[in-house]
Amino acid sequence: MDELLRYFQRELPAINDFLDKEADQLNGLVRDVAKHILGSGGKRIRPMLTLLFARAFGYAKDDHHAMACALELLHSATLLHDDYLDDAELRRGRDAAHLVFGRTETILAGDALLALANEMGARYGNPRLSWLLAKGIMETAAGEIEEIEFSRNPSLDRETYMGIIIGKTARLIECACRCGAALAGATPEQEDAAGDYGLNLGIAFQLVDDALDYASPTSETGKPEGGDLKEGKVTLPLILLMEEGDEAGAEALLEALKDGSLSDGQCADILEQVREGRYSERTREEAAFYVEEAKSRLDGLGTGEEVTVLRQAADFVLTRTK
Amino acid sequence: MDELLRYFQRELPAINDFLDKEADQLNGLVRDVAKHILGSGGKRIRPMLTLLFARAFGYAKDDHHAMACALELLHSATLLHDDYLDDAELRRGRDAAHLVFGRTETILAGDALLALANEMGARYGNPRLSWLLAKGIMETAAGEIEEIEFSRNPSLDRETYMGIIIGKTARLIECACRCGAALAGATPEQEDAAGDYGLNLGIAFQLVDDALDYASPTSETGKPEGGDLKEGKVTLPLILLMEEGDEAGAEALLEALKDGSLSDGQCADILEQVREGRYSERTREEAAFYVEEAKSRLDGLGTGEEVTVLRQAADFVLTRTK
Repeated sequence: MDELLRYFQRELPAINDFLDKEADQLNGLVRDVAKHILGSGGKRIRPMLTLLFARAFGYAKDDHHAMACALELLHSATLLHDDYLDDAELRRGRDAAHLVFGRTETILAGDALLALANEMGARYGNPRLSWLLAKGIMETAAGEIEEIEFSRNPSLDRETYMGIIIGKTARLIECACRCGAALAGATPEQEDAAGDYGLNLGIAFQLVDDALDYASPTSETGKPEGGDLKEGKVTLPLILLMEEGDEAGAEALLEALKDGSLSDGQCADILEQVREGRYSERTREEAAFYVEEAKSRLDGLGTGEEVTVLRQAADFVLTRTK
Repeated sequence: MDELLRYFQRELPAINDFLDKEADQLNGLVRDVAKHILGSGGKRIRPMLTLLFARAFGYAKDDHHAMACALELLHSATLLHDDYLDDAELRRGRDAAHLVFGRTETILAGDALLALANEMGARYGNPRLSWLLAKGIMETAAGEIEEIEFSRNPSLDRETYMGIIIGKTARLIECACRCGAALAGATPEQEDAAGDYGLNLGIAFQLVDDALDYASPTSETGKPEGGDLKEGKVTLPLILLMEEGDEAGAEALLEALKDGSLSDGQCADILEQVREGRYSERTREEAAFYVEEAKSRLDGLGTGEEVTVLRQAADFVLTRTK
């Protein structure tokens, strides 16, 4: 993973500087909220993917930052609104923004970051970029809504679950990849290859996230252990466990998740069963399939530095522990 | 105002149909919220302005609805978030959306409407439209933030007040007018004339709104009488009253507004003083200046039906009673 690390180390400072400068220009009421969420140790995967695909398709100019960072701002806007609506207490190990700054500041900071992201994409005067960004914003908003609907009426249906993780995570990562290709003026086929890489990578990314939720101590992920279960969220480790158990047990669990009546003891029991059945590891195995799918989309793109880094990024998504 | 009425009667059904169809396609969790705010008797001024300027500059195609309605959706998105953050109870005489549907549905419906508005503007593949819309969204988000900041730290400074009403209202109306011109492929000078008309009209519109707040019974405006004062909002009628009173009284009032300690008796007393001093009427007189400014921007645009309607629309803004 040497190339990946080197590439990120080389490019991240300029991306972080750009994000900082844009956030500095926001109104005082929301500026600190924006800086809080942007400074909370995000991996900058979205802007890096935009940059990597732009260069993979031959983009030689140095004005990619607004486009690349737009995706990070959009992602951050979503986190602000989601954490508030979920009453989340932690984000990447720090207090969630709404607890530090209040609901008004947090909601408005989300609105401002979304607006700024959109404006940054429009700076290029490129209709394809504006369209991709508009679609990405639309799909992400729909994904947020579907996730909340699902959490109110959870099911153990895999297809529904896949739809949720595509909407909440994978579409925006697809968008980041497509925007890079479009910035470089790639052909529709090339853009589709970039988009397919991103979609599959995004699915794998979220599957690993859902696996980590059951497998990692808080100190690594910055989120409470088993947090998804405690919040009543149905993810793949739980679906796998229920698929192998009896139907009555599954139905009782769904009911308990729906009305929030799961006791601490039941919670601990389920966490133990997930560990014993290695359902977190099996979720990673599913993710491995999507990582391979993602990498296969790079086959026609040569062997340049960016393509190497994109392959390593896919492997990194699978092996990450936080 | 015959031409204005006829024009609105002719065009509004198609605009309302379009808004309905777009709202119908939203996810179930937010669809009813969108339909609630869109069906609450908005005047559709923004879409009508887009349409009027498009046609005034010779646009002959019939695909203006997405662009025109994008502005209405954007406006509605703002209302949803604002009413929630203001804890507003009424909107156009009906219960505010967050009281009917809950905070999650309302915040997410705002996000979804904003995303949809943006996507509708991007459908044209016209970089100027995307840029104008992105700027309009950005300015509106900033305007919301500035207004809330101002309400927390109110002042009797007219310049600050004008900045607030430009940000919260006039910029989006300017955007609607510019988008109409840009849709028709107008020259930059023509677009500026449309934008100046909109900016001045928007200022007048908000001044009249602020005048009505002190002058109209709830049954006409659908908002509680003197609601701005009760919410601690400083608007022009109050500024005019304070400018003519003593400084100590003004400072005491500002303090009371800031810490929310204005008693019902003090409130009633101020409402009475505003009535006696005719400060609401004098606010309308200020609005009349901006209406004339707006109309003057139409001078080079000929005498077609749309220009007649635009003149009448400016007069209507001034004379409206709700």
